[in-house]
Amino acid sequence: MQNGIERVAAAVVPDAEQVPPGTFRLLAEDAGSQARAGLLQTAHGAIETPVFMPVGTQGTVKTLEPRDLHELQVQILLGNTYHLLLRPGAEIISTCGGLHRFMGWDGPILTDSGGFQVFSLAKLRRIRENGVEFNSHIDGARCFLGPVESMAMQRVLGSDIAMTFDECIPYPATPEYACQSVAKTLRWAVLCAEQARAPGQLVFGIVQGGEYSDLRVRCAAELVAIGFDGYAIGGVSVGEPEPVLLRGVEDSVVHLPRERPRYLMGVGDLVQIVEAVARGVDMFDCVIPTRHARNGSAFTRAGRVPIKAGAYKQDTRPVEEGCDCYCCRNFTRAYVRHLLNVGEILGVRLLTIHNIHRYMDFMQELRRALRQGVFSEFRREAWARLRSARPQE
Amino acid sequence: MQNGIERVAAAVVPDAEQVPPGTFRLLAEDAGSQARAGLLQTAHGAIETPVFMPVGTQGTVKTLEPRDLHELQVQILLGNTYHLLLRPGAEIISTCGGLHRFMGWDGPILTDSGGFQVFSLAKLRRIRENGVEFNSHIDGARCFLGPVESMAMQRVLGSDIAMTFDECIPYPATPEYACQSVAKTLRWAVLCAEQARAPGQLVFGIVQGGEYSDLRVRCAAELVAIGFDGYAIGGVSVGEPEPVLLRGVEDSVVHLPRERPRYLMGVGDLVQIVEAVARGVDMFDCVIPTRHARNGSAFTRAGRVPIKAGAYKQDTRPVEEGCDCYCCRNFTRAYVRHLLNVGEILGVRLLTIHNIHRYMDFMQELRRALRQGVFSEFRREAWARLRSARPQE
Repeated sequence: MQNGIERVAAAVVPDAEQVPPGTFRLLAEDAGSQARAGLLQTAHGAIETPVFMPVGTQGTVKTLEPRDLHELQVQILLGNTYHLLLRPGAEIISTCGGLHRFMGWDGPILTDSGGFQVFSLAKLRRIRENGVEFNSHIDGARCFLGPVESMAMQRVLGSDIAMTFDECIPYPATPEYACQSVAKTLRWAVLCAEQARAPGQLVFGIVQGGEYSDLRVRCAAELVAIGFDGYAIGGVSVGEPEPVLLRGVEDSVVHLPRERPRYLMGVGDLVQIVEAVARGVDMFDCVIPTRHARNGSAFTRAGRVPIKAGAYKQDTRPVEEGCDCYCCRNFTRAYVRHLLNVGEILGVRLLTIHNIHRYMDFMQELRRALRQGVFSEFRREAWARLRSARPQE
Repeated sequence: MQNGIERVAAAVVPDAEQVPPGTFRLLAEDAGSQARAGLLQTAHGAIETPVFMPVGTQGTVKTLEPRDLHELQVQILLGNTYHLLLRPGAEIISTCGGLHRFMGWDGPILTDSGGFQVFSLAKLRRIRENGVEFNSHIDGARCFLGPVESMAMQRVLGSDIAMTFDECIPYPATPEYACQSVAKTLRWAVLCAEQARAPGQLVFGIVQGGEYSDLRVRCAAELVAIGFDGYAIGGVSVGEPEPVLLRGVEDSVVHLPRERPRYLMGVGDLVQIVEAVARGVDMFDCVIPTRHARNGSAFTRAGRVPIKAGAYKQDTRPVEEGCDCYCCRNFTRAYVRHLLNVGEILGVRLLTIHNIHRYMDFMQELRRALRQGVFSEFRREAWARLRSARPQE
């Protein structure tokens, strides 16, 4: 039995020495939707998709160590170029041998381009033809970030997957604004594609277009014409209703090649993840599991549980019954609630461990459902458990 | 070789089933001082002394989990009765089966009596014959804590070692005040000795007397007449100069029985620990290693290193070269400094791991020196490394 599993696993996970980074093998495709399971090779190992990437904004998934991430079977992290550019900066990361060595993580890392943060966090922003001038949100220092600078910083970071520098269109936006913005994103994408890369580094282009179907379809097609290792869907989760988000996914995916990975940026609602997978998406990232842990909220199969609430102060059950994470194996809701109530950091750490475990477990079940050809059942069940409703057809 | 070590270890560490809690075996005594190495049996296992107890004020050693404490070879923790009484309170701890089960720690725990915190933290304090009325420093709620209440709470906590409820004399204090205070501490000690205990729970009496030798000598003698499982030296580290502290230790120890453990409360300076060991002390606790971690300061063999300082921002060495803790095995000063600089909790956690490791390692070396009959060399070397001076004779 054991040998059988090992043999199958060996066949599924190719040797990193032999398989060039960027190789993406489809392992299963759902008959009733566009969902698929795959295996993406990176310079730091292979990733089973669909995959959820925990966010390590400032060189750490908040409160967690690399050994925790391995124990939680995290496959790939997201790092934020904007934050790491401001602190500690390119020089220190370079001195320390890149982001992997700096943070002690030997698995794959995807870095965003910094575009989203420049538009959402930075102050006194001025958009130029070749990038954005802005003031640091930390100390007001004047900075400039464009396709050239972003790719250079991502080269220093040495991420396995770099993202193109784009403009994130707010919701709502006028068609004129969206159209001009997409044109700029495409010019920047061309520039990004021309920049030097770290060894084995993949680059993903980002489809923008806001709520406008024709813009998204055109943007995707033009990115494919440039040619990237993978494609992301950006400009979502910016306040638009869920149907607009999902239509944005559908519009973006139309012209994307079947054999390249697709990444939906910043979406972490589990039902939305399942719906995006059904529309052909392979990769996700979101701060939800870590941020909710800091707010004292636990993700469980039955939905969110506000562990910090007084209702749990005498509750001797684990955060989630039946869960085999370190938090649930060892501690009660009463204890975790106490830690959160008195401001002990350990409470946040334990809930972070649980929430990341919940996400990893959910994605593993999703991948298993795809491999076993029961994705539609998984999708229906996810809706029933998490939304008490039927999936949209 | 391996077998030899195991055989010796088996002979040294008795089976908890067979050895009753409170048994204290002296394993080595220094010829040139009063220092000794021993083995104290508790209901949750044996403790090799001299021992340092990390402080777990609110049911956790800040940022650390039980598995971390085991990995760091922490033998025994200190819990604070005052803090746990206010939050989460006796009822919740009781519902959760005591402090060990509440916090998931299966090793020994010593709880203080709450006396020190009532005098240092609580507001609107009014000292009564049978205890202290005070307002909680959290929400101002009116509370009462005396020998009866403290022992009851420590019984609920189920600590392996409970401390008597005492009055901590400030420094300086008039002889009249100190004399009356010691009389009260002794009356309270009698009451504490009469209270019911948790199964296997030991009770230590606390020697007070401030800076007055005669008071300390008398207090110790009277406590011994009452009879406790061990004796603590309290009312130190309250602002007095080091010579006064060490004389207080000497005065307190005079009448303490050789065959009972002695605990110096709240002292965590490593040279002071060595000097107290030389004066016959076996147990220590202090917030220093954890608090300094939160302030960005690392303990090393060469003294303290302010890792948070800008000087370390490009330093690719570990926090302490040659250290084999998780932090030093995996991360650079530049990384830990970055985490502290951007406010990432992980920085505090990594430094806490390192600092506790440093303390555990120091105490292990101290015990080894005692066993090998080279304590005077260890003492001299500790002074040279940590104070650049000679020990006081």
